[in-house]
Amino acid sequence: MKKDQFLEMMNFRHACKVFDETKKISDEDFRYILEAARLSPSSFGYEPWHFLVVQDMGLREKLKEHAWGAQGTLPTASHFVVALARTGKTTRYDSDYIEHMMADIHHLPEDARTKRRSYYQAFQEKDFHLLESKRAIFDWACKQTYIALANMMNAAAYIKIDSCPVEGFVADDLNKLLADEFNIDTSVFQAAYMVAFGYRKDPQKEKTRQPLEDIVSWY
Amino acid sequence: MKKDQFLEMMNFRHACKVFDETKKISDEDFRYILEAARLSPSSFGYEPWHFLVVQDMGLREKLKEHAWGAQGTLPTASHFVVALARTGKTTRYDSDYIEHMMADIHHLPEDARTKRRSYYQAFQEKDFHLLESKRAIFDWACKQTYIALANMMNAAAYIKIDSCPVEGFVADDLNKLLADEFNIDTSVFQAAYMVAFGYRKDPQKEKTRQPLEDIVSWY
Repeated sequence: MKKDQFLEMMNFRHACKVFDETKKISDEDFRYILEAARLSPSSFGYEPWHFLVVQDMGLREKLKEHAWGAQGTLPTASHFVVALARTGKTTRYDSDYIEHMMADIHHLPEDARTKRRSYYQAFQEKDFHLLESKRAIFDWACKQTYIALANMMNAAAYIKIDSCPVEGFVADDLNKLLADEFNIDTSVFQAAYMVAFGYRKDPQKEKTRQPLEDIVSWY
Repeated sequence: MKKDQFLEMMNFRHACKVFDETKKISDEDFRYILEAARLSPSSFGYEPWHFLVVQDMGLREKLKEHAWGAQGTLPTASHFVVALARTGKTTRYDSDYIEHMMADIHHLPEDARTKRRSYYQAFQEKDFHLLESKRAIFDWACKQTYIALANMMNAAAYIKIDSCPVEGFVADDLNKLLADEFNIDTSVFQAAYMVAFGYRKDPQKEKTRQPLEDIVSWY
């Protein structure tokens, strides 16, 4: 049954806090996990993300100083990702990046780009008030990156690779580290989350969730 | 090949703007899609979400007035979901809801709850400055709901059901409608996104994405 397969994948996935250091994900398998991020949808199709794969153990050691939620995974993960989201500088309706996405990736002709830009401007200014603060428009980009997060974790789980999503870091300190040690222009990209991949060392705990009746209402 | 199956699912999924009105998703299949939302992970496991399934065509007509991005899907979708995220009122570290989740869902003993609450407080206050505005903490909850969004759309695509995610609505007007017509306490829940499900009427367009080299950097 296909439905059972999908739910089996979802039940296999859990926040795996420590990985078996002796097991490495193959290049082909990790490329497939990244491909799941790449194919993820995003608002207006603007893909406001970038993924840093951190394999250098010296850099992981530095990340560890600012990421209390990744103490067990940073030293043991086969692959460790820091996901970045775009700031408003390149996601505003009038930015070069948006023009690049519409022209070079979506292949829209100029009249379609003009129309789309005006929709997007109204969406940003009126519908969601995204331009009211740097934080509001950055958080909007972050939301999109969580779709890629879900897809990477599921792609992994589908082939029995474990993962751990991490929000446990000090955002300001991490962004400073990204600027200093990773050459990231933090006026354009800032940290959204981290996610570690590898193979579990310990058995997973029982999954806890609210019952369906508590989270769904019918109209 | 398992990897091909997963990527086939991701390629099947696209923003389906109009559905075939004559085809309905079975109760069992839709329950499975909701189960994918239910099993989704969230920060600290707090599941800050609720899903409204809107099948009443009168209510869909009212939603249509405030959702320019759902003009084709609201009248034709087999099932239409409005996803809500929790406001700070029930996601603050000292809220009853957080206590409920830790005690009744996660089954943590009192000392573990106390410890976890202090971590969560530091996370909210210092690491992410989530308590600096109502918007910041609400957007944080919204990010979690996008994980459930990805999972619902993929669960659907896995069994060849189409979907369309929607951010194209006027947030303030929609929240007012949710209060007036859906009896939602908008001091506790507000709209995060909409997502429609059904079966495609038209063939899907070619998927456009940036190449992997443009969105991934290795360290």
